[in-house]
This record gives sequence, structure tokens and C-alpha cells, in this order.
Amino acid sequence: MSNLARFLRTGAIATLLVALPLVAAAQDPLPSWNDTAPKKAIIAFVARVTKPGTPDFVPVPQRIATFDNDGTLWAEKPTYVQLEFAIDRVKLAAAAHPEWRNQEPFASLIDGNIERAAEGGEEALTQVLAVTHAGMSTESFERIAREWIRTKRDARFKRPYITLVYQPMLELLNYLRANGFKTFIVSAGGVEFMRAYAEEAYGIPPEQVIGSSGRLKYQMRGDVPELLKLPAIDQVNDKDGKVVSIQKFIGRRPIAAFGNSDGDIQMLQWTTAGKGPRFALLVHHTDEAREWAYDKDSRVGMLSKGLDMAAESHWTVVSMKDDWNAIFPK
Amino acid sequence: MSNLARFLRTGAIATLLVALPLVAAAQDPLPSWNDTAPKKAIIAFVARVTKPGTPDFVPVPQRIATFDNDGTLWAEKPTYVQLEFAIDRVKLAAAAHPEWRNQEPFASLIDGNIERAAEGGEEALTQVLAVTHAGMSTESFERIAREWIRTKRDARFKRPYITLVYQPMLELLNYLRANGFKTFIVSAGGVEFMRAYAEEAYGIPPEQVIGSSGRLKYQMRGDVPELLKLPAIDQVNDKDGKVVSIQKFIGRRPIAAFGNSDGDIQMLQWTTAGKGPRFALLVHHTDEAREWAYDKDSRVGMLSKGLDMAAESHWTVVSMKDDWNAIFPK
Repeated sequence: MSNLARFLRTGAIATLLVALPLVAAAQDPLPSWNDTAPKKAIIAFVARVTKPGTPDFVPVPQRIATFDNDGTLWAEKPTYVQLEFAIDRVKLAAAAHPEWRNQEPFASLIDGNIERAAEGGEEALTQVLAVTHAGMSTESFERIAREWIRTKRDARFKRPYITLVYQPMLELLNYLRANGFKTFIVSAGGVEFMRAYAEEAYGIPPEQVIGSSGRLKYQMRGDVPELLKLPAIDQVNDKDGKVVSIQKFIGRRPIAAFGNSDGDIQMLQWTTAGKGPRFALLVHHTDEAREWAYDKDSRVGMLSKGLDMAAESHWTVVSMKDDWNAIFPK
Repeated sequence: MSNLARFLRTGAIATLLVALPLVAAAQDPLPSWNDTAPKKAIIAFVARVTKPGTPDFVPVPQRIATFDNDGTLWAEKPTYVQLEFAIDRVKLAAAAHPEWRNQEPFASLIDGNIERAAEGGEEALTQVLAVTHAGMSTESFERIAREWIRTKRDARFKRPYITLVYQPMLELLNYLRANGFKTFIVSAGGVEFMRAYAEEAYGIPPEQVIGSSGRLKYQMRGDVPELLKLPAIDQVNDKDGKVVSIQKFIGRRPIAAFGNSDGDIQMLQWTTAGKGPRFALLVHHTDEAREWAYDKDSRVGMLSKGLDMAAESHWTVVSMKDDWNAIFPK
């Protein structure tokens, strides 16, 4: 058997997976992006770093791209999806806890009053995490979260949350990967929650999802080992914490970073401060009709300083209304 | 241009990188392994999980393999390489610190008396880490560690440390990767130290290196952002900590795990407790002539309970003397 024949037998599936996006990319890799400045900037950047023999060429292992999740890859309004999940879990558990009717933050959450529940601060958050995100094995939690996110529909768009992802960003993820990039999520969201759907929704495997996390305990249940989720916060992955996590988990500075809020600006700053070609992009929520419109005054996903820094530092800003011709997958 | 022609142009290099190890594997993927039980067990396991259409087939994204580093991928005697590095750094800094002559643990380290320096326990370790692994940016540390490990020679074999890796394990890493496995280091060693050479020595990129770590601080030096290494321990990656880190960093249970000491047994236990085919291997240091011989009574790399568990659980045990026909690369 010739080497080529052997390769075709053994590597055929992997080859097709690699080759097909490249073929598609030769047509239009970003069909849901209008032919405006952000699309042109993305394509110019990718062309620049992937051309061998030029000074700006970046070897494949260094093509690291990091993405915020909430508001960058999927919707975060009226509030974070993970908070909706926690409220659902509290309501489900409430039947066995009649005392919660008179006990904060549970009483407010059951009433759907997030603002009032949030008045309890970090202690309230820890109480909610304890009953919704802890006291079970990592594998049990993953099953619960995956089932919920595939079936639960959001109130406005009546779509299962797993389909509330941005079609243009899915195309961007595929386009970058087809050009040798490794795509990571670096989010303030809970890591176990995001991992429950990131591979299905974005094609991002669990080892490329970085988020906030709770403490874990390795223990035996009978003679079966398990990892128990403890009701204690291990790491909060926001602002400076995103840069620290990039070093801790990836160990290499990204060459491209994508976000949508002031929680992402350190990540974009760190990325663009590296040598050689760099790319930074902020998604600006400007489309009240098709999604939501918010920036400076929003509690969730506030974007204020980031817009100033984008102007000063020549980061790319996407106006969802003007630059995207589709928001969600069909 | 046909799709095939386009693929051959765009994907040619990646294709060759994937295909060549497969071609080599058709000959003998593990030439430095004798034709004894461990080699047969490895090859049988890989054949079993990679055959499509069989009940034991494991999809590529789930082919996660984790490796301890010291004593599993490279030598750890007479003491950990990273400790030799720290001693070298202390000696270098000692010129500017005459007071260290009368100050522990520095006085003992300068004398080369590790045992006495270790009497200071965790406080002594933190003091040593503070002057050898902190107070500089992550990028400065990486440069220092990389230069040292490429040039510093070990006392017995007179080889640069970066060549003190085990040839049979390099072949094993390549063999697994050629069969779709993603290879990770999960070690008690310092993560920044290992990342400084893991890609060059093992072909393992920084994002697949998990280890003990110190705290980091994101800060501006003038208008340039940097990550400062702080003199405080963030995470100790040993025993139970290895399993916790596997979940935290990889988020998926390995199907194969490789170690050499009692610090690795929880990782092997967690790996083999998963459903479907699993593989666990311990390297037993039995070759005084070509490397070192130690197990139950060794301070560094103690292997005692692990040998009992291997017998009970049918883990594979490699006797370096009997199962490997080469130790270091030529």
C-alpha cells in the first residue's frame, strides 16, 4: 500500500474535517457579516498572520484566540443565562424547602426579583450556588445543566438557550479554526456550566473553556471515586482575572481577543500589547429590534471604558445592527 | 481548481504532520520498548479504542492521556531538576546577598545540603520560591528557565537537562498523538518551569501543561502591561490535587494515565474508574546501571502503595531495566 493510500485510509475523516471549512472559506467564510469594516479587518488580519515567509506570519501553535462568552458568543439579556438556570433550580428545590418562602435570597428569586435577591451580595450568591451548583458530583451537574440548556426556552425569542448563540460568531470561530487558530472561551461564567454545552454549541472542547469555578473535593463514594462540587468559590474569572487565567490555563498570550463589556478590556489590552500582529474586537449591542441595545448604563454587560479604549487603541467595534445581517442561527 | 487540489495547497503541511507518524507507526511505533508485556498492553489498548464501529471505540475528542513529569517523562534523581534550578538561582543571587551565608534555608542550599534546607518546611520553600521563582514577569522567568534547561548539564550523565528525557516515553507520546490522543502533563512541578521546555522536549504545548503554580498579578509597568509572579503558592498539584486539576483544566476524564510514584495513584484511580476501556501505567525505576533504582524508601518519587494498587487493579508496570532497551535519546 502506498503512503498516500495508507494516509487516505487512516486520516480520511480528520482530513475532511480540516479541509471542508477551508473549501467553504474560499467562498465567503463570514456570510452573516455585512461587507463593512469589521469583516474586512478580520479577514485582513487572518490573511496577514497565515502567509508563510512574511514577517507577520504566526506559526500555528501561537494562533491563540480567546472569546468572552456572555454577550460575545450568545445573548446575556434580560440577565445571564446561568442565573436563569440557578433560578429554575431554586424553584425546583423549593418544594422541599417551604422555609425559603420567608428566607432571602430564595424568596426573592422564587418571585423572580433578581435585583432584590442581589442585595444580599456575595453571601446571597454563595447560598444560591450552594443549592444550585454544589453538593453533587461534577458528572451529575453536567447532566443537569446540559439537559436544561438544550430544552429550556428563553422568554423573548422562545428558543432553547443552546440556540441563542450568535450566528456571525459561529462563523468567525469556524473561520479562525480553519486557519489554524485554537479557540478558547475566557468568561466570568461558571466553567462547569459552559462546558456542558460549549462543545455542542461552539465546537469548543472542555479543555478550552476557562471560567469562574467552585472548589472540588476528590472522594470515594463506596469504592467509586467522585469529584464533589463544594459550596465555595475557587476563582472569579473577570477583568484582571481573565489575564491571570490566560497565563494559568493557556500559558501563552493570545494574538486575538473578542469581548463585549468592560470586564473584557484587560484581556484585549494584554492581547494587543504583545509583539507582532494582534487583533481585538468588541461586540456592541446596538440592535433593539433583533436582539438588545445597551452599553454604558447596563447592569449586565456594561460597556463604557471599553468604547473609549477601542477608539484610542484602534480595536475593532462591531455594531450588531449595522455589521451583522443575521443574529441567531436559522 | 478542484476541491482536492485546493486542499492539497492549503492543508499540505498539516496533513504531512498528521500522516507521517501514522506511516512510521505501521513499522514499529515503540522501538525503544522491548517486546514485553507493557509494550503489548499499550498497543492492544490503542488498537482497541481507535477501531471505528466497535463498542470500545473512543471518539478523538475523548482520547485524553495525562502524564506525570518528574520520574515519568524525565529523570528526577538525585533530586528534582527544578530544585537544581532553584539552587543555581540562589547561588547566582548570593553574591548580592552576603547575609545568606548565615541565613537558612539559603546557607544550606549554597552548601548543597538540600536535606538540611528542607528542614525549614513550607516557610523555607516559600522563601526559596520568592527569590528564584517570583518578583519578575512571567516572560522574564520563562527566558531564564529555558536558557538554563537547555545548557545546564546534570552531574552524572553530563547531559543538558533538556535531553534527560526518556526516549521510550517520547515514542509513546508520539504514538498516542498519531492515534488522535491529546497528551497532557499533570505534574506537581511548577507549571511555568515545565512550560519553558515542554514544547521543545515533548511536543506538548503550554496549554496542555498542568502543574503547581504561584499567584500572578496583572499590572502596568509604565504603559506596558505585565504579569508579575508573586511569592505566594496558588495551587499544589499532587495526589488528590491532580484529579481536581484534571477537572479544572481539562474538564474531561482521561482514558489513559501514566505516572511513577504514589503522588500519581489518585490520577490513575480516577482515570481507570471511568466507563469503557481505560489504561494506567506506572514507570518503576529498576535500572541502577543506566538510570536509577528506587521505590518504597525513596524521598523523591516514592513508589509503595502504587505497586500494591497496580497489582490489585491490573495497572501496567514498566520495569525500566527489563522493558526499555534505551533510556535517553541518542
